[in-house]
Amino acid sequence: MKAEILAVGTELLMGQIANTNAQYISSKLPEVGLGVYYHSVVGDNPDRLQESLKLALERCDVVITTGGLGPTQDDLTKETIARAFGKKLVLHEESLNDIKSFFIRVGRQMTSNNEKQAYMPEGCIILENNNGTAPGCIIEEGSKTVIMLPGPPSEMKPMFDEAVMPYFKKKSKFLIESRFLRVFGIGESAMETLIMDLIDGQLNPTIATYAKEGEVTLRVSAKIKDGESADSILNPVINEIKERTGECLYSDADQNLDEVAAKLLIEKNITIAAAESCTGGLISEMLTNIPGISKVFIGGAVTYSNESKSELLGVKKETLQKYGAVSCQTAAEMAEGIRKRLNTDISVSVTGIAGPDGGTAEKPVGLVYIGLSSEKGTITKELRLSGNRKRIRNVTALNVFDIIRRHVMGLEN
Amino acid sequence: MKAEILAVGTELLMGQIANTNAQYISSKLPEVGLGVYYHSVVGDNPDRLQESLKLALERCDVVITTGGLGPTQDDLTKETIARAFGKKLVLHEESLNDIKSFFIRVGRQMTSNNEKQAYMPEGCIILENNNGTAPGCIIEEGSKTVIMLPGPPSEMKPMFDEAVMPYFKKKSKFLIESRFLRVFGIGESAMETLIMDLIDGQLNPTIATYAKEGEVTLRVSAKIKDGESADSILNPVINEIKERTGECLYSDADQNLDEVAAKLLIEKNITIAAAESCTGGLISEMLTNIPGISKVFIGGAVTYSNESKSELLGVKKETLQKYGAVSCQTAAEMAEGIRKRLNTDISVSVTGIAGPDGGTAEKPVGLVYIGLSSEKGTITKELRLSGNRKRIRNVTALNVFDIIRRHVMGLEN
Repeated sequence: MKAEILAVGTELLMGQIANTNAQYISSKLPEVGLGVYYHSVVGDNPDRLQESLKLALERCDVVITTGGLGPTQDDLTKETIARAFGKKLVLHEESLNDIKSFFIRVGRQMTSNNEKQAYMPEGCIILENNNGTAPGCIIEEGSKTVIMLPGPPSEMKPMFDEAVMPYFKKKSKFLIESRFLRVFGIGESAMETLIMDLIDGQLNPTIATYAKEGEVTLRVSAKIKDGESADSILNPVINEIKERTGECLYSDADQNLDEVAAKLLIEKNITIAAAESCTGGLISEMLTNIPGISKVFIGGAVTYSNESKSELLGVKKETLQKYGAVSCQTAAEMAEGIRKRLNTDISVSVTGIAGPDGGTAEKPVGLVYIGLSSEKGTITKELRLSGNRKRIRNVTALNVFDIIRRHVMGLEN
Repeated sequence: MKAEILAVGTELLMGQIANTNAQYISSKLPEVGLGVYYHSVVGDNPDRLQESLKLALERCDVVITTGGLGPTQDDLTKETIARAFGKKLVLHEESLNDIKSFFIRVGRQMTSNNEKQAYMPEGCIILENNNGTAPGCIIEEGSKTVIMLPGPPSEMKPMFDEAVMPYFKKKSKFLIESRFLRVFGIGESAMETLIMDLIDGQLNPTIATYAKEGEVTLRVSAKIKDGESADSILNPVINEIKERTGECLYSDADQNLDEVAAKLLIEKNITIAAAESCTGGLISEMLTNIPGISKVFIGGAVTYSNESKSELLGVKKETLQKYGAVSCQTAAEMAEGIRKRLNTDISVSVTGIAGPDGGTAEKPVGLVYIGLSSEKGTITKELRLSGNRKRIRNVTALNVFDIIRRHVMGLEN
């Protein structure tokens, strides 16, 4: 079955926003056996929308529209599509009540043009909107299906997940189930070599690799027919990959490395502090984005100058003079300093040259030292990273979360 | 003149990436008098690409394609479009030399399939690629123009800015010039009321407002004909808006508030330190993203626990007990503590409840205190913010950068 995603909205054609709705929907439809063949975008113009709809229905079985369901005069998707199918718009009482309750809930005055949103094409399946006022709907006509969803991603995504995916799952002869394995410490080419025979040999499940700033994600997807178990198809391949990637595999549930490290700390109740130079607070910021971290994250220091390294962390002036701020000795003293100061179980530290300036022949941009201190002692690691400032900071943070993960799990560091 | 942006790439239809190229190009084309009427996306399939190209040429004057210019067998844009125009691909020696030099520069081996990228449709205008191997090109045929650009944004954007925009500027009978005014401290509705008469009354320039997490951007756009000066059309309206928005307008050059605040500090050589609780390092992280900041940013502390507030910042235990960690008193002592510790000209502090947990009836989620300390004394500000954790942290950071800006400029705080 072929699908097209047709976005309606002048703001997309003006470049004010990117079409992330199409991306989101496209990433999900293969799970229910639908292939996305086209994306298209038109403005809030009924003629061009009608032409685009006609074309989409000619070339695809399923057309999913986003946008144009709002209360203003510009919002014409429902009206235009109903007309194309020769359907009237009729008042849907339940939707009207939902819209009224929504306005009461958010404490805003409902204006009369919001009523327009409760008029739906006759005979359609209504999709409730729990996050806004515009309901969505599904029109089934012969072999064709048109699904209209609201434009704001905060309304579109939950409606798609809660109503559209189950609708297709019921109809689909098979499902695609995917697992995402996350690996840190093996490059993309090395990873492809490592599992080449698995990629080449397999039809079901299939394996795809994606590289992203210093890490690799593997997607393992199985086609599941009625009565089959996803696990029985997926697990043998996943176990084989786990065997081969060993300690470098840090998640089989598509979690980020910072999340995995933070959850290990929370689970084992290990308190932590961070001392950062070139990452400028990024590691503290990422850690404090994880819900529940306040139980174990005590605090951190961002020490950009030599003075602040001495004053906040107690790094010795001789160390800075003899080895420099970017050295494994300084990284070690930073980690030890913050741990002592905040009396935590473990601590991490970063000092390096993120660029674009500040590099020398001896200490080039991308040279970073990270440290981890615990009652067992202090370890440091030298990184030599490439890319721009942002990439160097991000990959450094990943390395710090990996050193935490390995320490907590008792793996080699 | 009507334009369509036709993206080629299965990765877009799989939802691996969003079509940010279309957004970028769409945001720029109005400046050269081109209206974007359609976006479309097809996979790496020559038949569907050919059909989509045919349709685009029927309904638009200019078609800009992105993607499919790479060295692999999947990359078929150039071949398909050349065939549609009945043109041969011929070797372009200069491009071949450029590709060879590129590989030498990045120290990688050139493979034979890269030569394919130097074969271009006969008679086309070649667009150099300074950031990759695939050149772009322009085919002019009767009243229609097709422009092919590479897919990776890091190659597409510079090629578009450096070659495509000048190409259209030369041809256009008029240009659109836009200025972006950034305002903090006036909500979107208040802003619309404030300048409603300007929006309603004007044809040239036109004014549009965009709201984004706690701030408003105004775009003022003028249609400029040959011989006219953009300033003479734009400045009267911009000056009127400046008059009305007063101190809340922080940039007339589309700069972010963190950038504006950081540049003021660097320019006036005012050293700064930060003490953060609920923002968890975000303010230090944003500041240290600005090039040149190391001259004035000395360091910061992330103090998530009461102990770390006392240990790193010297916040008094009695203050924490009497007023609580989330209070203007604690915010003041945090700012004073880090300033004294790191001996800086000024310092800022944040303490609050970013949620989702931790709120009480008396101190709800979204209650945040920020502080600024200088030799003139310490000021604090209470914020009551709405939204999720991420929004509360981001809007808090904006308020901190605004308090810095106002202090440095001697404005009321």
